[in-house]
Formats: sequence, C-alpha cells, structure tokens
Amino acid sequence: MNALFRPRTAIAAAILLALAAPAASAASSEAQQEANRKAVLAFYEKGLNQKDADAALAYVGDRYVQHNPNAADGSEGFRKFIAFLRDKFPNSHSEIKRSFVDGDHVILHVHAVREPGTRGTAIVDIFKLENGKIVEHWDVAQPIPENPANGNTMF
Amino acid sequence: MNALFRPRTAIAAAILLALAAPAASAASSEAQQEANRKAVLAFYEKGLNQKDADAALAYVGDRYVQHNPNAADGSEGFRKFIAFLRDKFPNSHSEIKRSFVDGDHVILHVHAVREPGTRGTAIVDIFKLENGKIVEHWDVAQPIPENPANGNTMF
Repeated sequence: MNALFRPRTAIAAAILLALAAPAASAASSEAQQEANRKAVLAFYEKGLNQKDADAALAYVGDRYVQHNPNAADGSEGFRKFIAFLRDKFPNSHSEIKRSFVDGDHVILHVHAVREPGTRGTAIVDIFKLENGKIVEHWDVAQPIPENPANGNTMF
Repeated sequence: MNALFRPRTAIAAAILLALAAPAASAASSEAQQEANRKAVLAFYEKGLNQKDADAALAYVGDRYVQHNPNAADGSEGFRKFIAFLRDKFPNSHSEIKRSFVDGDHVILHVHAVREPGTRGTAIVDIFKLENGKIVEHWDVAQPIPENPANGNTMF
C-alpha cells in the first residue's frame, strides 16, 4: 500500500512546492519592501529632523546619486545640506504624510516647514535602494500657496 | 484502499488550498495594481497630452478630489484645466519618466514642457484609485533650474 501511496504523495508534494514557491517569494519581496520603507523613514528622521548626517548615512549604500538640483552629488552633498539646515533652520521639521513602496523604490509625500508657523513646502521624495540601502534620490518641492483654488490642502 | 487514501488526500487538499489562496490573492492584487497603473497612464495621455478631458474622465470614479492648489475641485476643475492647456499651451507635452504602484495608489514622475524647447517642470503626481477608477489626486511641481548643483538631471 505504501508503494501505491508514493506516486500520489510525490505529485502532491510537487504541487505543494510549486504553489509554495511563489507564495514564499511574494512574502520575501513584501518583507524586503517593508525593510526598504523602514530604512528610508529612518534615514529621513535621522537626517532631516534630527539633522544627524552620519546617522542618516548609515542607511546609504556605496553611492548616493543626487537628482535634487540644489544639492551637490553624493553623500558629501548630503552632509553639506544637513549642515546648512542645522545652521540656518535648526527648528525645521519634515512630516511624512504618506509613504509608498514599489519594489526597489520608496516614495514619500512630505510637509516640510523650515520656520515653525510658516506654511512650508510640499515635497515628494523618491528613493532607490539596492540590497536594502539607499543609492539614489530624486525630489520635487513646491511652496504651499496662501490661497489655494480648492479646500482640500496639498495633502 | 480508497478509504485509507481519503484522509491524506483531504489533508493534502486542505494544504493546497491554504497555499493557493495567498498566491491567488497576490496574483489578483498584482493584476489590480497593473490595471490601476494602466488606467492612470491612459488618463494622463488622454488628458494632459491629447487634451481630451472627456476621454480622460472615463478613468475617473464617482469623485475627483483635487489637491493641486491651482486647480478647482472635482471633474469640472479638471475640465477647466485641460481647456486652459488646449487654449494657452496647445503644444504642451508631459513625458512620464517612471511610474510606481502601491496598492490603490499610482505615482508618476513626469517631465512637463508647456512650450517646446523650454526646460519645463519636474512633477510628481499621486493618484488614489477605488475599484480601478481614479478618485483623488495630489501633485508637486518644480521648475527645472538652469544651473543645477549636480549633473544628474532632475530625472
């Protein structure tokens, strides 16, 4: 009877493996995406809010390709930007309104206020990660206007 | 012998179902996300490039909550914006550089040029969808500067 069981068992095992593989892969991908999101959120908090460039750069990989047209390239450019914030806008704060993850990319929708009490700026940041580390950054920033054409806010 | 097979078969079937469910759900979610991306890309092409508000609004649901501070709320605000583009900037063109999808949200990174030959504007659009239709829109826009601090472009 055991001999008769084996083929069916083998077929069932093969089907189980075939089904388990994509599920496991999806779970692993999901876990990596959440790890990417956490890395970017930590980078942002350490850098933009705590203004600790070294702590932020722990989340950066072997390069930091900068597309923000006001910042110099690389991690040295990031250090300079954080030093500028610490010096000129020590009370600046960036509030992350929502975050998105798609594979190797993490996207943040941010309300940045340099001087407390001012309207501030709407920003979207896009980060690319490799092996869980940030390697590239793009952003777009727009001052929040005084008289918007609708009552929904920019967020 | 068949009677002896049944429990094992039942257990195998139960395991198969348990494993198949997340895989099928992931595939369905993946398909919905790709459908969301396609809907947003079509909306953008019909609206911003072909300047056909009616064709674009076919991808919009029962509401269009507008967070762009320069546009009136709702689909009527969108119609006015497209009419403005058609009238003032008939040759304007928006090139989608990259798109991202996270669940119900689709994010576009766009290079918009109102007058051909000018540097144009970097934009990130965020769309929220419900049941495959667009229901909410945020964006952030920044003119591309003449002399960027790095050579990587804003894209």
